[in-house]
Amino acid sequence: MTAVAPTPSPRAVNLGPAAELISKEEGHRQPLAPEFVSPHDFSPLEVAYDFGRVRREDIESGPRNIWRYKKLLPVPTTVEQTPNTEPGCTRLVRADRLAKALGVRRLWVKDDTGNPTHSFKDRVVAVALAAAREFGFDTLACPSTGNLANAVAAAAARAGWRSVVLIPSSLERAKVLTTAVYDGALLAVDGNYDDVNRLATQLAAEHESWAFVNVNVRPYYSEGSKTLAFEVAEQLGWRLPEQIVVPIASGSQLTKVDKGFRELGELGLVEASPYRVFGAQATGCSPVSSAYRDGHDVVQPVRPDTIARSLAIGNPADGPYVLDTVRRTGGAIQDVTDDEVVEGIRLLARTEGIFTETAGGVTVATAKKLIESGSIDPDAETVLLITGDGLKTLDALGDRVGPKATVPPSVDAVQSALDD
Amino acid sequence: MTAVAPTPSPRAVNLGPAAELISKEEGHRQPLAPEFVSPHDFSPLEVAYDFGRVRREDIESGPRNIWRYKKLLPVPTTVEQTPNTEPGCTRLVRADRLAKALGVRRLWVKDDTGNPTHSFKDRVVAVALAAAREFGFDTLACPSTGNLANAVAAAAARAGWRSVVLIPSSLERAKVLTTAVYDGALLAVDGNYDDVNRLATQLAAEHESWAFVNVNVRPYYSEGSKTLAFEVAEQLGWRLPEQIVVPIASGSQLTKVDKGFRELGELGLVEASPYRVFGAQATGCSPVSSAYRDGHDVVQPVRPDTIARSLAIGNPADGPYVLDTVRRTGGAIQDVTDDEVVEGIRLLARTEGIFTETAGGVTVATAKKLIESGSIDPDAETVLLITGDGLKTLDALGDRVGPKATVPPSVDAVQSALDD
Repeated sequence: MTAVAPTPSPRAVNLGPAAELISKEEGHRQPLAPEFVSPHDFSPLEVAYDFGRVRREDIESGPRNIWRYKKLLPVPTTVEQTPNTEPGCTRLVRADRLAKALGVRRLWVKDDTGNPTHSFKDRVVAVALAAAREFGFDTLACPSTGNLANAVAAAAARAGWRSVVLIPSSLERAKVLTTAVYDGALLAVDGNYDDVNRLATQLAAEHESWAFVNVNVRPYYSEGSKTLAFEVAEQLGWRLPEQIVVPIASGSQLTKVDKGFRELGELGLVEASPYRVFGAQATGCSPVSSAYRDGHDVVQPVRPDTIARSLAIGNPADGPYVLDTVRRTGGAIQDVTDDEVVEGIRLLARTEGIFTETAGGVTVATAKKLIESGSIDPDAETVLLITGDGLKTLDALGDRVGPKATVPPSVDAVQSALDD
Repeated sequence: MTAVAPTPSPRAVNLGPAAELISKEEGHRQPLAPEFVSPHDFSPLEVAYDFGRVRREDIESGPRNIWRYKKLLPVPTTVEQTPNTEPGCTRLVRADRLAKALGVRRLWVKDDTGNPTHSFKDRVVAVALAAAREFGFDTLACPSTGNLANAVAAAAARAGWRSVVLIPSSLERAKVLTTAVYDGALLAVDGNYDDVNRLATQLAAEHESWAFVNVNVRPYYSEGSKTLAFEVAEQLGWRLPEQIVVPIASGSQLTKVDKGFRELGELGLVEASPYRVFGAQATGCSPVSSAYRDGHDVVQPVRPDTIARSLAIGNPADGPYVLDTVRRTGGAIQDVTDDEVVEGIRLLARTEGIFTETAGGVTVATAKKLIESGSIDPDAETVLLITGDGLKTLDALGDRVGPKATVPPSVDAVQSALDD
């Protein structure tokens, strides 16, 4: 008989309403822990809740950031008392000029560029940090090529934690600077993003005190995207929109927006009115869109080739769940070329004064295509999720925008340049 | 006898509580109009108000942007109903880690990078647009090298107005793109910023329908900076801070923050407790700091040479008024070298996860210097105004930040890089 070390009983954690982890495929339940794959069916683990009663007043009297929704998130009840980046409560902009350009009646843009590091990643990282603190980690880590690296390094700095951020050594200098400035441990790895990702998984297994936000604390991290749904509903006056367009990278965000809407309905915080979820991809990395078009349930991995790098995940973990969500709600998925992405960026800037990164260009251009094909109902209210900032993907504009003219410093020269 | 055309009576404008324009030097009063210099004493014109009663509830029940303060601004009473960029309500961050690094007890950072185009300029431009609309203009214009150009082009796009933005033709490509994307009339002018500025003044005189935000509608525009003071006070729970550090470019912002605090006290919205206003400049453009140090009342123009370009105004229009404000409130003015600016940027990023442009580096570094010299009381509560975003001045970081190491994709290599 072999001596077996006793399994330590799970540490009693205070993660607010979070009750258990549950496997997405077969619903196996297990205690809250920093784990991400079910040992029973090998499917992703997701947070299950015991919400109790949540009232609108509880939320409305909370802080002007995502912690107003703490009773709906896997975070300690005292979460707002510990330093974190406090993202959220970004603008929901009524977009009448874009609506007119697209030929729809009521359109809103959720502008998540207003977050601390200017992308929705601040939401998920803030939740990951709060949960990681509770689990006893002391280092916040991630593999990333952009927005996530910024968000992790900033959140760790604010909290006084160490960060370890792994990037491919070929990353452009501007993207290196915007993470390095926070002075964590930024490591350039000789290899492509797949190599970096694999290394992150190895390191997560090796280092017990490192919380890799999108690996070992991923179930908590991904719940942060629900706050996009919560805010949209609250900003609409506590109701759900009829249609929403969400970009797809791993697919997590789209499924969590859906989860957020459902939770609000189940808790009676909004009327559980029907809504349709639409997914947006760049054609150069459109495995979920292809599967949707072909009527498949599984997603065939691809090798990404698109300017929309923040969406360039060739083997999206939540792809099948995205297909489920979109089909269940009566939505659709579509993809757009890089040229259309740039036109989407320009259209949003020209009509609403919002400058988005390439991912937002994907969302706008896909919405346009879905409207033209009749998939999106032009008479139903629609929300577009704009999840990142144009300042981070300037290169995508290439030579397509620039001054109208170069003139000598004279009134007449200005006049004739404008008359041209 | 010469036939004289009758002077048109001033158009009855609805600019809310704004009653008249008043000259800053001798107090000459004149009706509200798109004018910026008094014909009587040639001093700048400023908005005078007839506030009536304003209650905290009026503000608290307003929108989550600067229009919640519409009863304190020169804007129509219906201002929130017309498309504009809706800036403001940015975070006031309790900065305990920065406080510790600086050796002070209670410190707050007002993080204005959360605005639509990521600088405080969105505030002043939004007010300028609202007033310009009321005066019957149809084009929003400015000379600029950076933040102002972004804000004007974005606000005009959102409103469906034409914009005319004049930039020096030598401007870096990244800064050109971030304005050009909004698709207004962006004109590159062969000349330096002084040439561009002069041209703007000529064009403002020539084109009756062009509102140059910082020229002919400057009295309205500059009032937008009061909203920084209003928000700080409201976010502190309706009270004034004891000390505030404000960067100085033209000096307008500093004087308007003071004006905002005074108005809140006069209206009984806060207790009129004493506060001290401190000014921050880069040594390479420090005419106001020099005048303060030398005990002068006038400001000697300089030729700017600093990386803090958004503060590089060599002949600051409001310099004398800044000196008045700082001396009246018991504050001080100090300046810092470009090296200190970069260290200021890095210190804020490292301690609070906030990445500011060079102007914010000036503010942090100047605060540090004022604390070390004893000018700022370390036991009194202090607010730092961070007015722009690090993504816009990446070049300033030069080679000072970067990855800790470049490693092969192996766990051991990561470990030894971190151990170094």
